[in-house]
Amino acid sequence: MNKWYLESGFQDDIVISTRIRLARNIKNIPFPSKMSEADGKKVVDTVENSLSRVSYGFEKVNISELNDTDKNVYIEEYYLSPKMLKGSKERAMFISQDGRVSIMANEEDHLRIQCMYPGFEPEKAYDVINKTDDCISETIQYAYSEKYGFLTSCLTNLGTGMRVSFMVHLPALVKTGMAKRLFGALSKMGIAVRGIYGEGTDSKGDIFQISNQKTLGETEEEIIKRMSDIMTEIISKERELRNTIIHEDRLSLENKIMRAMGTLRYATLIDSNEMMECLSYVRLGASLGIIENTENKDLTKILIELRPYHIAKTSDNALTIKERDAKRAKLIKEYLK
Amino acid sequence: MNKWYLESGFQDDIVISTRIRLARNIKNIPFPSKMSEADGKKVVDTVENSLSRVSYGFEKVNISELNDTDKNVYIEEYYLSPKMLKGSKERAMFISQDGRVSIMANEEDHLRIQCMYPGFEPEKAYDVINKTDDCISETIQYAYSEKYGFLTSCLTNLGTGMRVSFMVHLPALVKTGMAKRLFGALSKMGIAVRGIYGEGTDSKGDIFQISNQKTLGETEEEIIKRMSDIMTEIISKERELRNTIIHEDRLSLENKIMRAMGTLRYATLIDSNEMMECLSYVRLGASLGIIENTENKDLTKILIELRPYHIAKTSDNALTIKERDAKRAKLIKEYLK
Repeated sequence: MNKWYLESGFQDDIVISTRIRLARNIKNIPFPSKMSEADGKKVVDTVENSLSRVSYGFEKVNISELNDTDKNVYIEEYYLSPKMLKGSKERAMFISQDGRVSIMANEEDHLRIQCMYPGFEPEKAYDVINKTDDCISETIQYAYSEKYGFLTSCLTNLGTGMRVSFMVHLPALVKTGMAKRLFGALSKMGIAVRGIYGEGTDSKGDIFQISNQKTLGETEEEIIKRMSDIMTEIISKERELRNTIIHEDRLSLENKIMRAMGTLRYATLIDSNEMMECLSYVRLGASLGIIENTENKDLTKILIELRPYHIAKTSDNALTIKERDAKRAKLIKEYLK
Repeated sequence: MNKWYLESGFQDDIVISTRIRLARNIKNIPFPSKMSEADGKKVVDTVENSLSRVSYGFEKVNISELNDTDKNVYIEEYYLSPKMLKGSKERAMFISQDGRVSIMANEEDHLRIQCMYPGFEPEKAYDVINKTDDCISETIQYAYSEKYGFLTSCLTNLGTGMRVSFMVHLPALVKTGMAKRLFGALSKMGIAVRGIYGEGTDSKGDIFQISNQKTLGETEEEIIKRMSDIMTEIISKERELRNTIIHEDRLSLENKIMRAMGTLRYATLIDSNEMMECLSYVRLGASLGIIENTENKDLTKILIELRPYHIAKTSDNALTIKERDAKRAKLIKEYLK
């Protein structure tokens, strides 16, 4: 199976990923929180049958068959949500061969359809998820109200059930202190800004997730358009500020960027927070032409594949914190070769 | 002209240099602090004449003809003492072709004869300085008392006029907190411990100068023997502690050593103190086999040739602090290639 983050993407020096997800439920089956074991099984089977008709094949992942590390590896890659680890009903995930589309069955809703692209690709991602949604709806009748739209477990998803979310790297906005004001303005526009691992997490390495809160009162196309326009403005502001800071004091910024690269290439013990800080400078450096021969996709790969459970997976034994820091440092060197 | 520090030396992972100097004065000429202009000139001429008879030729450096940067470059290489920059009498320095022997005329005494070796070489250095002293004394009659020995400007040099001084790198003694106790014990034995640039300077990069205080009541050979024995013990203790700290927590020490190398190789701005700290870890790392392909003489070269006046000499214009930090960082990279 391919992974969504292994390729380069448009403007991926700022936008690490574009993610769209749709919340859908099957008509006449209770929502996952209320349904029976049999209903749970029925949902998984129905989704599996439906997907078998989609031309670009899906691979089924049976969540209950995964060990703890493997589940968390999928979470670290954004295929699974942490919520999928809770609850006792039968749950499954289906991932497309290209690694861009994934469908969770029996998360908070019967179906959570997701499409991920590296870089800034709202139209492409929307096109793919829309086609997948159409294809599924040929065999599955969704719970739908003419008045409200798609019915969902949680009211916050009612209507389109669509969340558009960008994982963005905003070092210049953060370092100039402008990020706080921007995030305040976004909040007033109904745009949520979250940390790198989603709701309730801190930002690390100047990385944020920016997504729409509203799913009701706008069409899917309107949400895509509005979110694209806002992201275009954020990208443009971030780019402008990068040029400002590099011109204001090139020597100091270059020094921080090169030292970060030195730390990544030479440290033999490094914790996750420091790695994230260093990666932020290196990504900024690559964007400004100070770091050469390092592509954004290489840095995104490190960002994802050197998360704790990915590192744990490389070893047969449970690692102490220090051993994990050593392993992380070793892997960074290999990734940066 | 060769420089004393460009070659490898015995145990040079711990002993950077061995330096012996003799204070000598010419009979019937007042000490430099009391002498006339004419006396000053006479001393320089007498020394020059005497040295012209020494088989391994000397190059004369006329101090008054040097600009400020060049004078300080000689100080940074330990050829000149800071005291040579003061006073108005004619002063000169004579350096042997191999860069190991230098003679200052009209410093505190008429002659300060010095021999420097990289590494731990008290016997070799003594042999060379002794022969030079013998050779000079064939043509110059020294101020000498049967009772006290060689007469000197300052009472602290009376007798042999000999100071044996080792520049040593003691990171393990410092990092384990044992250095303080050692230095206290040395002080009671009449052994002075000074900072890297000599009297009244702090230690940088765990480097110290260890020298005898007493010049009276012992023969030259006895001083050499006593200082060699003490240094041998210090070397052995430092080596033992290096083995202890590497075995106690190899991962952490390796991390610090490699990060120091990363900083030296990647920083584009670095001040003198940080450079010294990093060089200390790298020298320790080379000694422990953690850093490969880096010789102690290369590190000593950086230690000397990246001092402020050496850096200033590489540029036509006066450098700001930031420009000097940038130049230092650039030069380190070239030296470490």
